[in-house]
Amino acid sequence: MFFPGTMRINDKGHLEIGGCDTTQLAQEFGTPLYVMDEELIRANCRLYRDTFARLYPQSQVAYAGKAFLTTAMCRLLEEEGLALDVVSGGEIYTALAAGFPAEKMIFHGNNKTPAEIQLALSSGVGCFVVDSISELELLEKLAAAAGKKVTIYLRIKPGIEAHTHHYIQTGQVDSKFGLGLADGQAFTAVVKAIKMPHLELKGLHCHIGSQIFDLKPFQLAAQVMMDFIAEIREKTGFLIQDLDLGGGLGIRYLCSDLPVSISNYLGTIVEAVQERAAAHNLPLPKLLIEPGRSIVGEAGTTLYTVGTIKEVPGVRQYVAVDGGMMDNLRTALYEAKYEAILANRALAPRKQLVSIAGRACESGDMLIWDIMLPPLVRGDLLAVLSTGAYHYSMANNYNRYTRPAVVFVQNGQADLVVKRETYEDLIRNDIIPERLQKKH
Amino acid sequence: MFFPGTMRINDKGHLEIGGCDTTQLAQEFGTPLYVMDEELIRANCRLYRDTFARLYPQSQVAYAGKAFLTTAMCRLLEEEGLALDVVSGGEIYTALAAGFPAEKMIFHGNNKTPAEIQLALSSGVGCFVVDSISELELLEKLAAAAGKKVTIYLRIKPGIEAHTHHYIQTGQVDSKFGLGLADGQAFTAVVKAIKMPHLELKGLHCHIGSQIFDLKPFQLAAQVMMDFIAEIREKTGFLIQDLDLGGGLGIRYLCSDLPVSISNYLGTIVEAVQERAAAHNLPLPKLLIEPGRSIVGEAGTTLYTVGTIKEVPGVRQYVAVDGGMMDNLRTALYEAKYEAILANRALAPRKQLVSIAGRACESGDMLIWDIMLPPLVRGDLLAVLSTGAYHYSMANNYNRYTRPAVVFVQNGQADLVVKRETYEDLIRNDIIPERLQKKH
Repeated sequence: MFFPGTMRINDKGHLEIGGCDTTQLAQEFGTPLYVMDEELIRANCRLYRDTFARLYPQSQVAYAGKAFLTTAMCRLLEEEGLALDVVSGGEIYTALAAGFPAEKMIFHGNNKTPAEIQLALSSGVGCFVVDSISELELLEKLAAAAGKKVTIYLRIKPGIEAHTHHYIQTGQVDSKFGLGLADGQAFTAVVKAIKMPHLELKGLHCHIGSQIFDLKPFQLAAQVMMDFIAEIREKTGFLIQDLDLGGGLGIRYLCSDLPVSISNYLGTIVEAVQERAAAHNLPLPKLLIEPGRSIVGEAGTTLYTVGTIKEVPGVRQYVAVDGGMMDNLRTALYEAKYEAILANRALAPRKQLVSIAGRACESGDMLIWDIMLPPLVRGDLLAVLSTGAYHYSMANNYNRYTRPAVVFVQNGQADLVVKRETYEDLIRNDIIPERLQKKH
Repeated sequence: MFFPGTMRINDKGHLEIGGCDTTQLAQEFGTPLYVMDEELIRANCRLYRDTFARLYPQSQVAYAGKAFLTTAMCRLLEEEGLALDVVSGGEIYTALAAGFPAEKMIFHGNNKTPAEIQLALSSGVGCFVVDSISELELLEKLAAAAGKKVTIYLRIKPGIEAHTHHYIQTGQVDSKFGLGLADGQAFTAVVKAIKMPHLELKGLHCHIGSQIFDLKPFQLAAQVMMDFIAEIREKTGFLIQDLDLGGGLGIRYLCSDLPVSISNYLGTIVEAVQERAAAHNLPLPKLLIEPGRSIVGEAGTTLYTVGTIKEVPGVRQYVAVDGGMMDNLRTALYEAKYEAILANRALAPRKQLVSIAGRACESGDMLIWDIMLPPLVRGDLLAVLSTGAYHYSMANNYNRYTRPAVVFVQNGQADLVVKRETYEDLIRNDIIPERLQKKH
């Protein structure tokens, strides 16, 4: 097993996170419950921020909100001095509602709507990452109408795509995101952007993938982007000041996962940028990165209560819990794999092979296939690890299940940051038109 | 193309559903918008109900709520005389809120929680479909505590599993659902259930899969279940009165899909049951079926506004719309395929190959790969067909996008049945703990 952050087993043999006994958390807040280890989130923020600052003169860490965003999370990020990568009007609204400074938001997305752009303009969002030539024109038009000059980055396809354990390097990336380098669209966009009176082209952005365990593609992307900055200066005389290298650092979901450390990751990027800057005789750009999963992923644990246990003779034991693909879409969507701990008997020997089923009415709703656990009984508390990123943010009401609560735990204290949905929430927006109403 | 239900192209060359011009729907309700063809839903309900009644003495159609359930939908179902298959406390709550009679609900699920069972008991849900021996014991205990005797069906694994275009027949099905026939668990459960004082075993249930285009597995399942009813009578003298054969009939997503008609499907089931009843000299059981997708699937259309259009030279044209995996999870989850129509120029020649991208910050968020459409421009209205089942019900707030509105259209009238979520809805349950609050 592995025990991220403050996770440990206490005297009672119970799993503890942030000094809170998980069996007590389950009692107080119910299950399924998303438990977030606040100390680990803060430690990750600081590790990113401080290491980056130590290694490089001008750096900024922007948390990728899509991994997990609530108003409380925005407050934590502000306290830790991070910027925020937002991808929608809803994320901007959430951050503003928490008082997060708009100028520290970086607005991404392949299809920002006019209404979202207007919200971002009127609230003073610090930077727009423009994804296409079409958007460049739309933004110029809307900025002009609003009488504003806005800072932009251009999203570039560096021709490198990386995912866990492998990457590809290709001339023309078949992706809905960004502007191609090889096909000249990136350069065309730069030239266009420089001329636009209401846009100030300040930086370039790229993002090469998710859950990456290999440093090579990060290094390559940094090099390619620096080469492009040099090419722009050479051809146009224009100097790109900021380079945002996106996110993508992998985390540990399984014991066998061996993610790269945050400092190795940062060191690799910094070295590549410095080397290329020297080679091209370029001033060092301000560097940005956008980690999401690697800040919150391992800090999240989902607590479930065990329900029906079913022995299928000669096949497997199915252990059903009171959650599933409604609160963890990643197993069904990406065939993601997870570790789990029996939270109320964490020291019991793992001597039974079981499979953990969700409760959605769908055969594909399985949380973990084939895991060794202590023999389980109805009412046991199961903790599934590394569920801090892309779990709450992808949660849904399939089967009309209510979405779980989220608690921040630290120093023995548990604070609710998202209330559990109620049945009333499910029908809050439902309307029965007059003509369909029941006549009594 | 195909035009389900009342869908047609009007004089203006606009797509029309339920007598409503979709361009006007988009203007009035915004996009993305789920449009449900009420007349088609009702026609499907009636076709199921009337055909089944004509073919078989005692029949009942229970709509599978998980496909699409709102309070208005419950009212429609009640008006059409259908029963309701529910799978959670949330579905029961929704139906009760609409005044749907509890006795016409059939409660499914592989892991009903004690709280859900208690809600079902106290509200008088008509029938519990018991999925395991563990649940049998739990339900007996809770029914006893409530001083009630409850009607139950047992969910059986008939050893047949079917999906689009193929099926398998196997002795021991590796599924989290139901009680195995081959391994004797089904029979053990029957014997146990008969003896339980607070449970009245009335029927058996099976469900063999989804989106099935082949009649053979339905026929086989009916035969296997009737053989089991005969075996039970022979071995115990106990007569099972009801047989619920679940759902699974496929619908048309693509022009090339050729689903079986509802009457052929019902005819096949009825014939198999009658033939086996005669062979075993059994009285005809009451027959139930649980269609979901085949009632609402083709009745649903999602309207999107076209945003960014991006030409990747030599690769493809990406057309991004203002929705994506947040409102249509099926493409990412099942690699589902869809047809689309340019709603505001529905007669324009389809001469361009494009791919329809969603707007979520995720490469996998593509709605349709490679479809011929008229050349598109920003602001066009795109209609994606057959999105009535498992779209709204699986919708989520990923990237903190708000969930779309749902309208019922009929006779030129559009009625909102689910309001569009607002930004306020996104943070309704968010809490900033005291210690994280901003000090001014």
